[in-house]
Amino acid sequence: MKMNNFERIQNPKLRHRVVTAEQAASWIEDGMTLGLSGFTRAGDVKAVPTALVKRAQHEKFKVNVFTGASLGSDIDKLFAEAGILRKRLPFQADATMRKRINEGEFLFVDQHLSHTAEYIRNRVLEPIDFAIVEAITITGEGMIIPTTSVGNSLVFAQHAQEIIVEINTAQPLALEGVHDLYEVGQQGERNPIPITKPEDRIGVKGIQVDVDKIKGIVFTHQLDSPSTIVPPDKTTQTMAKHLIHFFRAEIAAGRLTESLAPLQSGIGSVANAVFHGFLESEFSHLKVYSEVLQDAVFDLIDAGKVSFASCCSMTLSDAKMKQVFAHFEKYREKLVLRPQEISNHPEIIRRLGLISINTALEVDLYGNVNSTHVLGTNMMNGIGGSGDFARHSRLAIFVTKSIAKEGNISSVVPFVSHVDHTEHDVDIIVTEQGYADLRGLAPRERVALIIEKCAHPLYREKLWDYYKEALKGGGQTPHVLEKAFSWHSNFKKYGTMNPTVSAD
Amino acid sequence: MKMNNFERIQNPKLRHRVVTAEQAASWIEDGMTLGLSGFTRAGDVKAVPTALVKRAQHEKFKVNVFTGASLGSDIDKLFAEAGILRKRLPFQADATMRKRINEGEFLFVDQHLSHTAEYIRNRVLEPIDFAIVEAITITGEGMIIPTTSVGNSLVFAQHAQEIIVEINTAQPLALEGVHDLYEVGQQGERNPIPITKPEDRIGVKGIQVDVDKIKGIVFTHQLDSPSTIVPPDKTTQTMAKHLIHFFRAEIAAGRLTESLAPLQSGIGSVANAVFHGFLESEFSHLKVYSEVLQDAVFDLIDAGKVSFASCCSMTLSDAKMKQVFAHFEKYREKLVLRPQEISNHPEIIRRLGLISINTALEVDLYGNVNSTHVLGTNMMNGIGGSGDFARHSRLAIFVTKSIAKEGNISSVVPFVSHVDHTEHDVDIIVTEQGYADLRGLAPRERVALIIEKCAHPLYREKLWDYYKEALKGGGQTPHVLEKAFSWHSNFKKYGTMNPTVSAD
Repeated sequence: MKMNNFERIQNPKLRHRVVTAEQAASWIEDGMTLGLSGFTRAGDVKAVPTALVKRAQHEKFKVNVFTGASLGSDIDKLFAEAGILRKRLPFQADATMRKRINEGEFLFVDQHLSHTAEYIRNRVLEPIDFAIVEAITITGEGMIIPTTSVGNSLVFAQHAQEIIVEINTAQPLALEGVHDLYEVGQQGERNPIPITKPEDRIGVKGIQVDVDKIKGIVFTHQLDSPSTIVPPDKTTQTMAKHLIHFFRAEIAAGRLTESLAPLQSGIGSVANAVFHGFLESEFSHLKVYSEVLQDAVFDLIDAGKVSFASCCSMTLSDAKMKQVFAHFEKYREKLVLRPQEISNHPEIIRRLGLISINTALEVDLYGNVNSTHVLGTNMMNGIGGSGDFARHSRLAIFVTKSIAKEGNISSVVPFVSHVDHTEHDVDIIVTEQGYADLRGLAPRERVALIIEKCAHPLYREKLWDYYKEALKGGGQTPHVLEKAFSWHSNFKKYGTMNPTVSAD
Repeated sequence: MKMNNFERIQNPKLRHRVVTAEQAASWIEDGMTLGLSGFTRAGDVKAVPTALVKRAQHEKFKVNVFTGASLGSDIDKLFAEAGILRKRLPFQADATMRKRINEGEFLFVDQHLSHTAEYIRNRVLEPIDFAIVEAITITGEGMIIPTTSVGNSLVFAQHAQEIIVEINTAQPLALEGVHDLYEVGQQGERNPIPITKPEDRIGVKGIQVDVDKIKGIVFTHQLDSPSTIVPPDKTTQTMAKHLIHFFRAEIAAGRLTESLAPLQSGIGSVANAVFHGFLESEFSHLKVYSEVLQDAVFDLIDAGKVSFASCCSMTLSDAKMKQVFAHFEKYREKLVLRPQEISNHPEIIRRLGLISINTALEVDLYGNVNSTHVLGTNMMNGIGGSGDFARHSRLAIFVTKSIAKEGNISSVVPFVSHVDHTEHDVDIIVTEQGYADLRGLAPRERVALIIEKCAHPLYREKLWDYYKEALKGGGQTPHVLEKAFSWHSNFKKYGTMNPTVSAD
């Protein structure tokens, strides 16, 4: 289907509202709160934020920026450099933004990705002045059809004072019909969300808004930033192998079948490698119920391994984007894109009994997981959806390489320097060394498994030393609080957690 | 309604299975796993566990004991003293048991109270040999009618090899009809749980089992242990006042109405005092959707303030038990008792948008909460339902006195020594000093509120000192890891966290 630009605005009344990005950006005032589309570099608005950043060259102002998750197109970088942010939430993944957050230049609120919509609905967060959302088209009834992500766009559009739409003509019109927009309603007045299978469609194909709220429409023509994922390497392949071994053991124990359970995986190279591992495996009729689809899911669809995938965004490499968009009709019936509140909803995750696979920064002897803070202080990206998924899944799996920085960092530590997932929420830990199945185990039972199956040999003895000393003091969860963070301190002082360089 | 004992077994086939507690206890073998009824001292089986403990005087054996939550009638104490436990889960609250857990005598698995049923259904935990459940009666169809709690009895009975029923003739028959037993089914195959209001009844009045699985029936006549709650004192009343002030502010802001939202409160004196605070307040048409009902909820029903209360157990003082049981017909239409999986289910908690009030042991500068571990090592009781509720509520409120041990312990510390609830899950912290509303705030914004509104004046300056030093290192969540636990260390060494006695 080919259309000229104006045909993408099917409501004639709205055609008069086309403006330049600069005009749209000029409406934004100091102190305002913006709700932007965009989730893990997909479906973000591109033109208005860029124009807004340009205004900052000759004007002083600050805005709050709420999104779905991380933005692409260097928008988060530009925002951070321009110094126009007061508050940013609920997730980011940009190196410059990260640096400025940690310097305290602006406020970053790290939220469970399913929670932001509830806070907006309950009017706890700053009210949204402008929702700015990317679309492939606006229908005659004023329904905004999103592009490669849905994110928080529905709740932003519903609760914003006014809406700016960016119609991105580089995004394929074939996406129309793949989205499923469902509004849960107010807490206390809502019904069950009627999803019982990943493929259930429960809503409508776009964001229905009062057309009078659409203040301006901007045309853009720019593809999403391609994903920065690196292909599987030997280490991530080994981790994938361990995980597949674990799934086989679960099947042997009668706890899973060869179609496993709907799969969720966080963004990142490890998760992508794990999914790649399924390609060569015996598992079939797999389904995905996740937030982000990366390249590997499409490979699995092509290979006939995955029969359906539900998500909130698609974040693909350059090559994969070209291939998928060129033949999108092939994929559309096997995909659905939902608001992040639905893709990450505890109700659905628990009902479907997902297998969730997310990345840890570090884990401790007892299975607590740090997903966000380097050395307990510096934000990496944010918790994202990992908490939504881990707490409610059938299997909460966390993956991490056992060491980092050429062995100077152990990802298994005595006490994690920040806790995002508690011992109550972590089922399986996987490193390239092996996996530890912590389900139903008391803290003291977990220690040996985590040390022997997950920690790098370089650090095993040192972990045992800590534990044995801790054990002298007794307790449900033995610790030597004085030394709990000594490895982190050691790294700060000497550049290594490695005991041979340790001062103690 | 009066019955003789045998009339309480309405299925004639089952009347032949009446045995003594000693006979029933004799069936339990070394290495077995038992699933016992009982939740917060209510509805626990009393005779068979006591007989089992007696066997330990002349016999060596170990069993795993799974329950709903804590047991009454000193059963947990007797178990611990007898040394017959291998593993205990998911919660306890007995001083002797606590001591033995911390000495490492047996394993304790501290679980979210809604999770245990899923682990059993997914066959992750040890298979249950005997479900031993308290009942008021068994119907003709072999339906076991529970007593003052439901706990995990449904899932235990369904998955156990065999069942022993204790018919407790001291528990009033008037309880029949108050329970609502609903089985969610396997993950991946289940439907939405059709509760949209606290008063919705969705199941049947008892636990339907295959009567052939009932191996024995024991008669007992013993009331539940009365609750050990202390009446509101000046401090807990002040906390209740702060909370009511917060609710008023929410109403003024248009975020709540005078009927608030369905209320949950953890067990304990503070929570009870908070509920007592509602008695003199303007709030009305309140509803409760909680796990345990304590005395105050019945006072609120009597005062016409609470129109309905859903729970999983009723834990009352001696006097209140007498009053409530003598007139139970007055309360029955205003109450429902559900399995703990339903009372604590994330799906329902999020849908109803509960206000949840739970107790913290300590909180830190950034709003992380420790609910379980004294000085990071010794188990207090367990996380209980606090995680189920806090993560999914509209308002996750944690209450704690600002100091303990005559001021030698500050409940507000630089870094909590164990994390049960992360910064992502904590909305409001209340102490007798005031309350901190953390919703939508970045970590650095939270600090001043927590110090100035919640910490005791004795510790405020010291907390500021820590934060200011931490701030020099920057970060999303500034910390001085070397000193993060120095207050705890100080307490261990000098018996006080108080800076005037500090060594540093």
